Amino acid sequence: MNNITFIGCEALYDDAKIVVFGAPMDTTTTNRPGTRFGANQARLESEGLETYSPYQNLDLEDYMICDDGDLNLTFGNVNSQLKTIYDKTMQILTDNKMPFMIGGEHLVSLPAIQAVSEKYQDVVVLHFDAHADLRTNYMGEKLSHSTVMYHVHNLDNVNSLYQFGIRSGTRSEFEYAAKNTCMEKFGLTTVKDIVENVKDKNVYISIDLDVLDPSIFPGTGTPEPGGVSFQELQNAILELSKLNNIVGMDVVELAPQLDVSGVSNAVCAKVIRELLLIKGGKE
Amino acid sequence: MNNITFIGCEALYDDAKIVVFGAPMDTTTTNRPGTRFGANQARLESEGLETYSPYQNLDLEDYMICDDGDLNLTFGNVNSQLKTIYDKTMQILTDNKMPFMIGGEHLVSLPAIQAVSEKYQDVVVLHFDAHADLRTNYMGEKLSHSTVMYHVHNLDNVNSLYQFGIRSGTRSEFEYAAKNTCMEKFGLTTVKDIVENVKDKNVYISIDLDVLDPSIFPGTGTPEPGGVSFQELQNAILELSKLNNIVGMDVVELAPQLDVSGVSNAVCAKVIRELLLIKGGKE
Amino acid sequence: MNNITFIGCEALYDDAKIVVFGAPMDTTTTNRPGTRFGANQARLESEGLETYSPYQNLDLEDYMICDDGDLNLTFGNVNSQLKTIYDKTMQILTDNKMPFMIGGEHLVSLPAIQAVSEKYQDVVVLHFDAHADLRTNYMGEKLSHSTVMYHVHNLDNVNSLYQFGIRSGTRSEFEYAAKNTCMEKFGLTTVKDIVENVKDKNVYISIDLDVLDPSIFPGTGTPEPGGVSFQELQNAILELSKLNNIVGMDVVELAPQLDVSGVSNAVCAKVIRELLLIKGGKE
Amino acid sequence: MNNITFIGCEALYDDAKIVVFGAPMDTTTTNRPGTRFGANQARLESEGLETYSPYQNLDLEDYMICDDGDLNLTFGNVNSQLKTIYDKTMQILTDNKMPFMIGGEHLVSLPAIQAVSEKYQDVVVLHFDAHADLRTNYMGEKLSHSTVMYHVHNLDNVNSLYQFGIRSGTRSEFEYAAKNTCMEKFGLTTVKDIVENVKDKNVYISIDLDVLDPSIFPGTGTPEPGGVSFQELQNAILELSKLNNIVGMDVVELAPQLDVSGVSNAVCAKVIRELLLIKGGKE
Amino acid sequence: MNNITFIGCEALYDDAKIVVFGAPMDTTTTNRPGTRFGANQARLESEGLETYSPYQNLDLEDYMICDDGDLNLTFGNVNSQLKTIYDKTMQILTDNKMPFMIGGEHLVSLPAIQAVSEKYQDVVVLHFDAHADLRTNYMGEKLSHSTVMYHVHNLDNVNSLYQFGIRSGTRSEFEYAAKNTCMEKFGLTTVKDIVENVKDKNVYISIDLDVLDPSIFPGTGTPEPGGVSFQELQNAILELSKLNNIVGMDVVELAPQLDVSGVSNAVCAKVIRELLLIKGGKE
Amino acid sequence: MNNITFIGCEALYDDAKIVVFGAPMDTTTTNRPGTRFGANQARLESEGLETYSPYQNLDLEDYMICDDGDLNLTFGNVNSQLKTIYDKTMQILTDNKMPFMIGGEHLVSLPAIQAVSEKYQDVVVLHFDAHADLRTNYMGEKLSHSTVMYHVHNLDNVNSLYQFGIRSGTRSEFEYAAKNTCMEKFGLTTVKDIVENVKDKNVYISIDLDVLDPSIFPGTGTPEPGGVSFQELQNAILELSKLNNIVGMDVVELAPQLDVSGVSNAVCAKVIRELLLIKGGKE
Repeated sequence: MNNITFIGCEALYDDAKIVVFGAPMDTTTTNRPGTRFGANQARLESEGLETYSPYQNLDLEDYMICDDGDLNLTFGNVNSQLKTIYDKTMQILTDNKMPFMIGGEHLVSLPAIQAVSEKYQDVVVLHFDAHADLRTNYMGEKLSHSTVMYHVHNLDNVNSLYQFGIRSGTRSEFEYAAKNTCMEKFGLTTVKDIVENVKDKNVYISIDLDVLDPSIFPGTGTPEPGGVSFQELQNAILELSKLNNIVGMDVVELAPQLDVSGVSNAVCAKVIRELLLIKGGKE
Repeated sequence: MNNITFIGCEALYDDAKIVVFGAPMDTTTTNRPGTRFGANQARLESEGLETYSPYQNLDLEDYMICDDGDLNLTFGNVNSQLKTIYDKTMQILTDNKMPFMIGGEHLVSLPAIQAVSEKYQDVVVLHFDAHADLRTNYMGEKLSHSTVMYHVHNLDNVNSLYQFGIRSGTRSEFEYAAKNTCMEKFGLTTVKDIVENVKDKNVYISIDLDVLDPSIFPGTGTPEPGGVSFQELQNAILELSKLNNIVGMDVVELAPQLDVSGVSNAVCAKVIRELLLIKGGKE
Repeated sequence: MNNITFIGCEALYDDAKIVVFGAPMDTTTTNRPGTRFGANQARLESEGLETYSPYQNLDLEDYMICDDGDLNLTFGNVNSQLKTIYDKTMQILTDNKMPFMIGGEHLVSLPAIQAVSEKYQDVVVLHFDAHADLRTNYMGEKLSHSTVMYHVHNLDNVNSLYQFGIRSGTRSEFEYAAKNTCMEKFGLTTVKDIVENVKDKNVYISIDLDVLDPSIFPGTGTPEPGGVSFQELQNAILELSKLNNIVGMDVVELAPQLDVSGVSNAVCAKVIRELLLIKGGKE
Repeated sequence: MNNITFIGCEALYDDAKIVVFGAPMDTTTTNRPGTRFGANQARLESEGLETYSPYQNLDLEDYMICDDGDLNLTFGNVNSQLKTIYDKTMQILTDNKMPFMIGGEHLVSLPAIQAVSEKYQDVVVLHFDAHADLRTNYMGEKLSHSTVMYHVHNLDNVNSLYQFGIRSGTRSEFEYAAKNTCMEKFGLTTVKDIVENVKDKNVYISIDLDVLDPSIFPGTGTPEPGGVSFQELQNAILELSKLNNIVGMDVVELAPQLDVSGVSNAVCAKVIRELLLIKGGKE
Repeated sequence: MNNITFIGCEALYDDAKIVVFGAPMDTTTTNRPGTRFGANQARLESEGLETYSPYQNLDLEDYMICDDGDLNLTFGNVNSQLKTIYDKTMQILTDNKMPFMIGGEHLVSLPAIQAVSEKYQDVVVLHFDAHADLRTNYMGEKLSHSTVMYHVHNLDNVNSLYQFGIRSGTRSEFEYAAKNTCMEKFGLTTVKDIVENVKDKNVYISIDLDVLDPSIFPGTGTPEPGGVSFQELQNAILELSKLNNIVGMDVVELAPQLDVSGVSNAVCAKVIRELLLIKGGKE
Repeated sequence: MNNITFIGCEALYDDAKIVVFGAPMDTTTTNRPGTRFGANQARLESEGLETYSPYQNLDLEDYMICDDGDLNLTFGNVNSQLKTIYDKTMQILTDNKMPFMIGGEHLVSLPAIQAVSEKYQDVVVLHFDAHADLRTNYMGEKLSHSTVMYHVHNLDNVNSLYQFGIRSGTRSEFEYAAKNTCMEKFGLTTVKDIVENVKDKNVYISIDLDVLDPSIFPGTGTPEPGGVSFQELQNAILELSKLNNIVGMDVVELAPQLDVSGVSNAVCAKVIRELLLIKGGKE
């Protein structure tokens, strides 16, 4: 068999402590679609990386990580797709492993966080994004990639929502954030302090890669200039490595076709490696 | 105001006999998405064409055609999108004009043909495509771009379905076609005779541009090698000009981002011009 | 009608205080051409933006801005094209509105500034660019995108020319600048002080988007590495918002085909939004 | 020195019987520009070809051909550019060599044919193109790539104009052609007979590569679907090899950036090779 | 595990009668490289195909085919890479299965055919290509993608070499072919008769996809205009289905990066499907 | 003749003090190939630059630099290619000129540095790169672009190896570096001090352009996010201008096809200009 897995993630499911899976959904995308191909292209591109991180002095080969492939989702049916993601996440949690999801559009985070918040109490969500994603609906639809964090924030067991790098939204979204979430506009400078505060809580990390400046990550449906550099995101990830109870993670919104150079695939793969290592390094 | 209309389609709605509109839906696309941008890029590219056709010796400027722009569709909600298309088509029909829709994915044809078949009795559908589109469902979903012609065929007032150029499908689809539709595999050689047979019937024409070989039309989500050349399609269109009662038309599945050369946009625009002229020439 | 306007610029001409128009000229471009398509692609891409700016806490929907579409220019005839731009700008000024031009190549700024300098006395020009544009001629031609600021500087009513971000030119151009203009090489750090100095003057702002680093703006004919980041340009724009008498603006040199990812279109659209808001916010 | 010449064209100017030169002009292009880069990219791509043609059983290495590089043209000044081309062509003719020009846009053919028609009497022009190029003016401009053959036809010593493959133009252009030129619409089937008729005349051959279907030649500014295949053009070239007095040739309208695959460059290079060999084979 | 296999090739190795494997080598490529990514992109693209062929009325799901993934080759070391391919092929043959290799550059065919010719006596090779590949050396190197068929022809047990579609080479190569191989220049019209002649022999089929016209297959390193259409190749494959003893096959020279539309990947995948079915249909 | 040389490098070989040549080798590239086209595309793109540098206030036209074109290398044969590079470098050194090589993959540096280290004693190598390139072998091969600096470091007359910007490698490579080389991870902040230390030594400078962040340099085979900005590299180059005995330089790993915008070509050209000027300015 030809097993195209993310580099260094060749453990069997039963042996794994972390389970990577892809959620190739891009049904509610409002601008350029294509994130359904994100996970597989990140896997292919990961071959150009090393398993070793000089940033963390850790190596993927030292951990038990299973890449379980892409989910088989029904294109066009939002509810069915979300249920499949929920079920998969719940299964991984039930098996006492940590879910690590590769999107797909950002709406995939909702069922994953829902599952996590049912397993764990008082989940804190750290959300990295260019967009607030706090609309109550989009053209009448409740479930959309632009409403996802509104719904996450209103899940029963989600204790608090921290947002970083946000630089786009309606006036209403920013007003909602001012009252309800903890949002850092434009940058990631508060990550360090917030990590300190939530160090021992159950933390879910959701990274919409468009938090990065489109200069380094053009391969996404709604690029928003003025984002953070790769180094700023990398530094934030190093801060995240101080968290003691990461209960789930996702990396979303890579749309590979939009960047024919392949650089966006490489960026996505490197972010995944670094995130896997901050969890792995705690095992 | 900056009116970007299809070339030669500047009539006001009230004055028009043909109304062009875009249906930027690509929710159920199973392979590469992006058809939502098709209509607008065809409009922009139409500037590189002439309004005059040396094939038909007719000129768009001699007819009253309104380009009414793109519909405002709710991404991700299939039913809502189909209803909007149905309502628009019915309004145009009620105003005694002919609807001419630019997709979007192929599922947009279903509500348009439904409206047409409610207005007119015994509608004959001529379907040009690489794919049979005759599945009863796709991963459990009834409404999909790969099921559209199955549902069209089962509309009450659709009298018969002729399919041309089909070269992809499951064994079941081809078996269904053998029993229920009139399908020409691979080519368009039977168009002439069939047009002769249905000349005075109410005919709806649906052209999935992937009936063309991907050499000349790479800008589509599921390119299928072995298609017809532009000249073969152009010749078929000249045959269609002998039809006396065309009651609606659509041209679907242009995904502009997949062809950075812009040629697919030009192909789509030229097919639209020729189709508009075969109807216009009958006025 | 299908009105593709810049997002939030749907006011009628008569009601508008700011009039946006495109000048699709790229006749004197010496390297890669294609800026003629810049304005329309910026309009299409603006759909991916919000009308609200979290940087300025202002919303385009609160102002009366008309997007009047692209001028109809005669390709290949420089003088005819410049006259059309001059006439359009003068008409807008005569109607007591502010002109906001989207290029096209940089030579389009010359007739626009000429018109502005005839309407207003003592115009100060703020020029953002990678290139000095101060040649007296290019291969014997006086009118060229590489001579435009030399000619602007020599207009009767242009009081002074400030140049920012310049990092390319001949030795002669830099010597000319040292004697005649006020040039900041490489960066935008002096914008703040200069805005303070010219705060109450009649100011025209001309932004050649290649002042940005090509990492964030590859879609331009003559990319020059070493430019400013989007955030640096955004911060400069926030400084410009302190100007009390902006009499005209232009944003030039987007060549959309050179950046198939669409990011450059998004950058151009966002710069336009921010510039429109600094003027709108003063109404 | 790094001499990038067309493959097999390394003769010195003084020794050569055929002189190849590039005319990198695209000033009057009305749609997508970029032909200025055509000649150099054809040169680079020619490395992927062989000097030997199995179609003609001839080899470029057996003939004395000089590739004299690109002309140095003044961007934006139409008259100056045309004069430079005229002068170069006349010099080559005066030196008793045959000029072979690589465009650039099609307007470059006018000064070249003018020079040829001054040197030789009763020149016959064979024109391969998708577009009639017979407008009397374009938006008021006499000199344009869309008027070039109208002006060629009205040169004093041009005896007759044969047009092949034409499939786009205004009604007026086709009416002009019906009265004044000898035009084959859509195809190249009459080439054989016409070559027979003009075999011993002074013949100039002008090939706008967009006569080819855009499936095989997408790298051009105004692609027009429905063109001839490469084999059809190749067969026509074999017919042209029967001409006894070819006095000049050009191949125009390659815009390399529009075809990132490089195939259009390869097509252009192969057409050039075959044309050089039909002349070379007569020496 | 995430098994990215060619569609319908999910059998286990031990159960399989046909074994597909990729040979990601492009070391001796002289023009644009990139074929090393061919096999995996063909696998990914095969998802857009159906397993059923309406051309053959056969379905991949009815046969036992194993996709064994890509070989692990040492970039840069030609001999080592060829040995790995030889060993793999021999293992498959020893296990009484048919090898089906996906390139990679064309030199990969040499070790595969060598293994086949050691297992079977009197092997006939059918070679589809744009290029003769009959050089004795390339710049002094014996082993090159442009010499591969010369070496194949000189293998001990290779009985005869038939070449189809050849349209490029040096004069020497064509002279060699005239004396030593059976070559059809330009087309595939002799396939039918030759298949009839060798019907009961041990036949190896090697398809360099650049035999196709670059209009339908631009994604290859040395595109050569004037090739066969997809239908012509498809028809030839249907003729090949009459062969009774196919002992090995390969499909080479897809360079995915050169065709950003993905069409070349789809073409490659469809050719593979059809070839697998002509063998499968004989089981 | 059509001399495509790097801008401002038109001196004859005999007159030159610096000789530029291209080494179009990409045989051992492990990820995306294509660097063989780097030098020529950098030459073509250099036309969009000026010969004058406002950073250094120096002009290429004031120095005697010869661009001697690309070497003629045998694709696929590593040893033969390296020997050709060695011979060329040695010839230039023997003629008392400084070699300036444009890659090609990074392995080309090995024979060039070998020649330099035979001519000069105690050569110090300054190595800018994203990758450590310190493997002892790659899949058993000693000679690879990922082993090049290991072998450079072990040349007899190479005194010391300084590495800058390194952010990728195996754990073993970083351990080797810790013991044997002087490596700055991630950045270029130590360049200033190290230049001060080696100011009067014989220094060879090797710049793998992937030391730059892929945002500004996507056109390379193995892009590694987190690199330095163009300004950081430019500032480092200004430090390098303080070196008194630069004995050779190379700039490698531009793969032009991977960046269709052309920006990477422009970056490469500008780095070359600045490096040529730091040497020229010392003459």
